[in-house]
Amino acid sequence: MPGHVAVVGLGLIGGSVARALAHLGREVVGFDADAGRIQAAADAGVIMRAGSSIGEAAAGAAIVFVAVPVGDIADVAVDALRAGAELVTDVGSVKAPVIRRVEAEAPELAPHFIGGHPMAGSEQEGLAGADPDMFRGTTWVLTPTEHTDPDAYARLRGVVRDLGAEVIAVPPDDHDSLVALVSHVPHLAAGTLMLVASRGSGSERGPLLRLAAGGFRDMTRIASGHPGIWPDICVENREAIVAALDRYLDALAEMRERVAAGDRSGLLTSLEEARHARTNLPIAGLERGPFVELRIPVPDRPGVLAEVTTLAGQIGVNIVDLEIAHSLEGQEGVLVMVVPETGAGDLEAALEKVGYRTSARPIE
Amino acid sequence: MPGHVAVVGLGLIGGSVARALAHLGREVVGFDADAGRIQAAADAGVIMRAGSSIGEAAAGAAIVFVAVPVGDIADVAVDALRAGAELVTDVGSVKAPVIRRVEAEAPELAPHFIGGHPMAGSEQEGLAGADPDMFRGTTWVLTPTEHTDPDAYARLRGVVRDLGAEVIAVPPDDHDSLVALVSHVPHLAAGTLMLVASRGSGSERGPLLRLAAGGFRDMTRIASGHPGIWPDICVENREAIVAALDRYLDALAEMRERVAAGDRSGLLTSLEEARHARTNLPIAGLERGPFVELRIPVPDRPGVLAEVTTLAGQIGVNIVDLEIAHSLEGQEGVLVMVVPETGAGDLEAALEKVGYRTSARPIE
Repeated sequence: MPGHVAVVGLGLIGGSVARALAHLGREVVGFDADAGRIQAAADAGVIMRAGSSIGEAAAGAAIVFVAVPVGDIADVAVDALRAGAELVTDVGSVKAPVIRRVEAEAPELAPHFIGGHPMAGSEQEGLAGADPDMFRGTTWVLTPTEHTDPDAYARLRGVVRDLGAEVIAVPPDDHDSLVALVSHVPHLAAGTLMLVASRGSGSERGPLLRLAAGGFRDMTRIASGHPGIWPDICVENREAIVAALDRYLDALAEMRERVAAGDRSGLLTSLEEARHARTNLPIAGLERGPFVELRIPVPDRPGVLAEVTTLAGQIGVNIVDLEIAHSLEGQEGVLVMVVPETGAGDLEAALEKVGYRTSARPIE
Repeated sequence: MPGHVAVVGLGLIGGSVARALAHLGREVVGFDADAGRIQAAADAGVIMRAGSSIGEAAAGAAIVFVAVPVGDIADVAVDALRAGAELVTDVGSVKAPVIRRVEAEAPELAPHFIGGHPMAGSEQEGLAGADPDMFRGTTWVLTPTEHTDPDAYARLRGVVRDLGAEVIAVPPDDHDSLVALVSHVPHLAAGTLMLVASRGSGSERGPLLRLAAGGFRDMTRIASGHPGIWPDICVENREAIVAALDRYLDALAEMRERVAAGDRSGLLTSLEEARHARTNLPIAGLERGPFVELRIPVPDRPGVLAEVTTLAGQIGVNIVDLEIAHSLEGQEGVLVMVVPETGAGDLEAALEKVGYRTSARPIE
């Protein structure tokens, strides 16, 4: 892939992406609204060249990674697309509102903006914590839509895998509901629990909190992170967070009724269900062989890619490799995917159910 | 202290207490409703002798540790007191209802029942996990009341410290509110969060939960424990749990309103307060010197001991050693306490505020 890569926003994630890309031998151009940070990134060898503006950094870029606060992503992405970047992606934790804004502002360029969310992080903060290996063995969500350009998607997918991450495709709204449930609401719930405990009146004073055991410490640990990013996330993902909080509030109120009613069997049943779910919480892991290659003739239009990849994501089948073989006629192509043998049957069945024909062959 | 020690209930905690006492050279008599478990405990050398009943094990015992499920503690304690045990304590996680039941059933013997709650545990379960060092460096709550016999308290305190634990005295109701807040409600909240996430409808299916990051895993970890003990705890500590859950529900509903309203500054303020509280969560630790000896003339009546020790607990001052020097006349005694120098001033001030005279001297 010719052309440089631009990284806009040189904090922890942006800096890590830049370092990892530099390790891969790419020319990395950086930009940040904070001139001091650009200088620091250049001095530390995180970027090879500093852009003088978003547009200048993005012009002619093969890929632009937007790693700015969630509320600013859409504007930066549109600037980068308008400056002539071939492909723009981001690393924010809220996807649908950002994508909708890019589509509304620059509908003709939106097929080349693909939302992304690396499920990685670190206790470190800022550029100083930037680590080229941050993404190794982690999962990186991409959120293609029916408008997404398939070649752009395949290219981005390849680069993200080069960074060491597994890619999973998830529809933007599903992504936002999911992170509301497994990240945003837990953060708010942990903070609230800590507030309630520390505000305890009467004799439940601070010192007694030293009696709090490991469970409480585990549950409130995430509340000790810097809160700076959360107002932005809560505003951007407001709808999904409110919906998830409402479900949580309803379920907690039910649990309260069980306690108030002394409903032993209801409590036991609920807690056993929770235990079962927690014990079976799938673990993100690197894919292991054996693998199967699936070939799927597809009409050569964008929506197909989002449909197939998000279907795989939904049933938990990891796409290890993906290639789009265009037909010469331009009417139909072949989507070639490599998936673990364990999930291949499920994926074929799911694809056939929605009308695709698939053929599979084991990979040696 | 002459006489044997009896342990009723030979599970993880009871077994650990028995093993620790045996290491200290005490004669340990064990009883369990499960005859197979008594045999296993005898075979494993956890107990020296098996009692044929609660009464037979408790008769003449210097101390009886009751380590049965929370709902059964009061009955076992009353049996043990009636059999002639000099002092009975328990290790359950709910205190006030148990103490009230013992006081109602055997008011004349209740001064010799002292509630206890070792803040220790293990991933292990049952007798097989019993560990004589389980309590080293941990905190063990005792809940003396105005009826508690001071000598019995001082004796129990000494034995618990011999097991390696720090002792903190907390009024029974405060204990129950505290554990509702830092243990019982967190457990229910974690289980409920796990349920809501796993029941996610639509595309939020199970497989996608592998995207749940460390924060979610931390928050739901306690939901993976065996739920068997929880219905009992929830019923026994119903009042305190419902009160704490209501506070949590109210605070969460407020947080939801902040998200729904896009109230950035309110969110930031709350999360910063939570972060501050979490960062300053006191850590249970072994006491370190230098120490101060406080001598407090006290009228020779039971309520004084509970008042003084729970006052120390409430302001977070750890009583390292405690002795009751009775006056010859039987009208007034001297309470001698050793406390860390760092907290001595606060404790003296608090004691003087409620009418005690104190004198302090540093300990070399």
